[in-house]
Amino acid sequence: MNTSALYHRPESEFAYLYDPETMHVRLRTARGDVREMGLLYGDPYFLDKEEWFRKPLQMIKTLSTDLYDYWFVEVTAPLKRLSYAFALKGHDGISVFYGDHGVYPLEEDYLRMPNNYFRMPFFHEVDRYKTPEWVKKTVWYQIFPERFANGDPSNDPEGTLAWGSADPSRENFFGGDLQGVIDHLDYLEDLGINGIYFCPIFEASSNHKYDTIDYLKIDPAFGDAETFKKLVEECHKRGMKVMLDAVFNHIGDSSPQWQDVLAHGEDSQYVDWFHINEFPASYKRGENFEDAYDITYDVFAANPHMPKLNTANPEVQDYLLNIARYWIEAFDIDAWRLDVANEVDHAFWKKFRIVCDEAKKDFYILGEIWHSSQNWLQGDEFHAVMNYAFTDAIMGYFVKNELSLSKMVSEMNNQLMLYRNQTNQMQFNILDSHDTPRLLTEANEDKDVMKQAMAFTYIQPGVPCLYYGDEIGLTGGMDPDCRKCMVWEEEKQDRDLHRFVKELNGIRKEQQKILSEGTVYWRQVSEESGVVIFERMLGGEVIRGAFNTGEHTARVELIGEALFSNLADVSDGAVELARKGFVLMKE
Amino acid sequence: MNTSALYHRPESEFAYLYDPETMHVRLRTARGDVREMGLLYGDPYFLDKEEWFRKPLQMIKTLSTDLYDYWFVEVTAPLKRLSYAFALKGHDGISVFYGDHGVYPLEEDYLRMPNNYFRMPFFHEVDRYKTPEWVKKTVWYQIFPERFANGDPSNDPEGTLAWGSADPSRENFFGGDLQGVIDHLDYLEDLGINGIYFCPIFEASSNHKYDTIDYLKIDPAFGDAETFKKLVEECHKRGMKVMLDAVFNHIGDSSPQWQDVLAHGEDSQYVDWFHINEFPASYKRGENFEDAYDITYDVFAANPHMPKLNTANPEVQDYLLNIARYWIEAFDIDAWRLDVANEVDHAFWKKFRIVCDEAKKDFYILGEIWHSSQNWLQGDEFHAVMNYAFTDAIMGYFVKNELSLSKMVSEMNNQLMLYRNQTNQMQFNILDSHDTPRLLTEANEDKDVMKQAMAFTYIQPGVPCLYYGDEIGLTGGMDPDCRKCMVWEEEKQDRDLHRFVKELNGIRKEQQKILSEGTVYWRQVSEESGVVIFERMLGGEVIRGAFNTGEHTARVELIGEALFSNLADVSDGAVELARKGFVLMKE
Repeated sequence: MNTSALYHRPESEFAYLYDPETMHVRLRTARGDVREMGLLYGDPYFLDKEEWFRKPLQMIKTLSTDLYDYWFVEVTAPLKRLSYAFALKGHDGISVFYGDHGVYPLEEDYLRMPNNYFRMPFFHEVDRYKTPEWVKKTVWYQIFPERFANGDPSNDPEGTLAWGSADPSRENFFGGDLQGVIDHLDYLEDLGINGIYFCPIFEASSNHKYDTIDYLKIDPAFGDAETFKKLVEECHKRGMKVMLDAVFNHIGDSSPQWQDVLAHGEDSQYVDWFHINEFPASYKRGENFEDAYDITYDVFAANPHMPKLNTANPEVQDYLLNIARYWIEAFDIDAWRLDVANEVDHAFWKKFRIVCDEAKKDFYILGEIWHSSQNWLQGDEFHAVMNYAFTDAIMGYFVKNELSLSKMVSEMNNQLMLYRNQTNQMQFNILDSHDTPRLLTEANEDKDVMKQAMAFTYIQPGVPCLYYGDEIGLTGGMDPDCRKCMVWEEEKQDRDLHRFVKELNGIRKEQQKILSEGTVYWRQVSEESGVVIFERMLGGEVIRGAFNTGEHTARVELIGEALFSNLADVSDGAVELARKGFVLMKE
Repeated sequence: MNTSALYHRPESEFAYLYDPETMHVRLRTARGDVREMGLLYGDPYFLDKEEWFRKPLQMIKTLSTDLYDYWFVEVTAPLKRLSYAFALKGHDGISVFYGDHGVYPLEEDYLRMPNNYFRMPFFHEVDRYKTPEWVKKTVWYQIFPERFANGDPSNDPEGTLAWGSADPSRENFFGGDLQGVIDHLDYLEDLGINGIYFCPIFEASSNHKYDTIDYLKIDPAFGDAETFKKLVEECHKRGMKVMLDAVFNHIGDSSPQWQDVLAHGEDSQYVDWFHINEFPASYKRGENFEDAYDITYDVFAANPHMPKLNTANPEVQDYLLNIARYWIEAFDIDAWRLDVANEVDHAFWKKFRIVCDEAKKDFYILGEIWHSSQNWLQGDEFHAVMNYAFTDAIMGYFVKNELSLSKMVSEMNNQLMLYRNQTNQMQFNILDSHDTPRLLTEANEDKDVMKQAMAFTYIQPGVPCLYYGDEIGLTGGMDPDCRKCMVWEEEKQDRDLHRFVKELNGIRKEQQKILSEGTVYWRQVSEESGVVIFERMLGGEVIRGAFNTGEHTARVELIGEALFSNLADVSDGAVELARKGFVLMKE
């Protein structure tokens, strides 16, 4: 047995409370190495008194990556505390005991060493990672406000171009605003959307508004507090949630705080609001707007217009936490999306979480993090991150043809095993955004490929989010091209795609419980034929998706009722999938 | 290469800030599997612009366990943010790239995928695990107050037995008190002690005082607030720190809060202070004092006299946090030792840490945890835990002959790799305590074995603690036997042992910097001869300990100046170690 492949970490995604009484236990082994796995467990104070260890609880092999198998079991404890270890039988016939002090022979002497057991010392509800249930029922829609709809031409900034009259650039404006969103809420409701994620709407100089000037003010070109209040109310009337974008890592260089630092240097009252490495705070200008060098203060990326905030400064904390509280209490928003969340300190986010939890029950916090995010997802910072690593794998296989099928599966399973099951249910699954090329463009404008990728994503753990305009066939390359004006003339919209998206949204909501909480199972992964059959299972029900990503028509035996399909011919017990076809079945 | 043995976890003991500018990176590989290891790293925003990855930073193989090798390197980052991954060359000639998305061929295409790198998104000082420097300079002395010295017979409880006149039982009292400690501070100072760890001193019924009645009151049999104030002052005058024992997991059943619950049941104002599963709160009595069954409320272990506190209740939090603050602010104590710390929730300990940090600079927090403790040692809860797992390995080999030499080394290295280097410097290393048999008794009263184990422990990372009376040859089996009265008559003390301990304490303090911060290196581990040579290295200096645990006299070549020895004959460049002999050298 490859014992050095074993990994378990107490009180982490490998061992956690799923609900107040149920603990989930996972263990990593080398792929294909272990035949049978049992959990040895008991109360820490009675380990030596019982014969419990003779009946290990059988663990099941769940997900596998290219290198590993992951084993899983649920367990409860009458006294809310647990000692546990693992009994492994390898395919090579060798049996071992694996506990808190490593690997030993599976013999009674070693089983009887209480210090050799991992511990869940007490089932503390307060430490449990908890989920706002409404998130599971949500289909998000991301709006880049400057480009969604112009509902109030009176607030258009100087030089606003006619709607859709030019390609989007880093500098141009088209007049999109909050009234435009209000005007189209019925459209969104009809599409099946019940959550809107807004890119920044606070006062800022740029068209993307990531360079905040005043976090307490709606950008005048977007409307005012009244407009926003009405927007939230109209959303809530329709059962739609509202998520705003908090850009707390950095502030805009037009903000009064930064301007004060530029004016007064070391004597500025805001000098400790930033990370200034050398005075005067300055930089040398490059050829392009955002090109700079010799920056003497910490910034976002290399952008001198976005000085980094010192979130360890209690004044900055108060300032930002007040903002967080203000928009929740005064406007009843439902969620914050946190920009560049990984570069802000954990101590700050823990305080931020407390403020949000106090301000509103079941508030949702979503961090923008592109890499492994375990430390932000322990239950006391965020509920989820933007799940790029997961959806990148889907894009890499279905759309970009950069990954093999087995690598996609490995990568998706790897991501699922980085987090608790309840975290996976909260993750924010996007196939494109204002920061990436459009899905349809990545798919070389092949709508069937786009449909396949979307259907596959919608049946994954986590919550789907649609980028505005994807549903009517908007195209666009890397930003700023992906920020084109929404097309509202029906005759210019792709109505077939719209119908598809609407129907998919409907299925997601009808089947939300199983699609949120159902166990993940890969029934068929065929590199050769390109057929993928993926299942979710919950309480005896199954949702099954079959996808043909191969070069030829494929026939698969499938039972159940067809919920939705594209390029598929469903007949009793079998489905003929054309190239790029798929079917979703329920059993 | 055994790629499935690889493990790295960003923002953990595998990747952390050691000082404000230096990050430590570790990686786990299968033992003996990898020949060469390099860290690929750069700024996350310029990864694609540089050729930096052609010059990986060489990592060194540091500690090994039975299954793993651990690799290490220090790295800095000009912009305080880092992307990193690993380039491995196996003994089998295979080279691989290992990053945030797993294992890939070590080829340029894979090196150029920025999302495939682990991240330290920003070097946040506020999130760094920080150490109170004084702890590194401390030699602790643990006092069980009822048995150390009776300085004030007027406060003896009814039925107090004459000092040392009987074996200790679970119920008897001998009159030890705080005045007794004050009376012997000169003794402790002379012994080289500069920190006292007191078992509980607050009002309680038992002789061990773990069943607190009133956390704000010194137990009347031990003295009063004035006595304690004087004790702390006298300690501080002598440069000694004071650590108290906080028993916050549970309270005594004689406490007014619990008595109120018994009196008023569900109507008690304290009903939410506890975890009561069924009313009335009750239990059935067994034959012994602490034997009980059918307990209807959560307790410590199975002891109905110690009802568990509900630390998720804000009232309980206020109550306990006030206590924590009170003894720091009113009496200037330097540290809290937290009883049964693992069974209290993390959310509470995070608040506790903030209170202590606010109340006193460089306050030290030590948790009682017997198992892997990563989650409590991230920098926002405890500084250290009682290092049983580490010292058990030493006891298991040197004293109890239960472990092989290589297993001891493996186990010690495993423990060191569970925590950050700065955590290891804070760990609390004990060979015995009020909860275990005495060291001398475990050593079958063989003083040379005891001396060897102590000398070996004193040169380990972490801070040593002596259990009262060990230095004069006190014996005792499992508690309550290990809680005998201290012997003060010099003629009944083992003065040779006393001299030994005093000298060892002196060396620990003289060499504290290297013994705290020095790199650990096993120069010789010979299962056959039983010779162990262990080194600490810092800034060109070396402390080297050679220990003969074998059956025969051993001769070892050693350079340097002998600092201390037992059963050793040191001559130019060589040492002859008798059985059970050792020498500490400095180079």
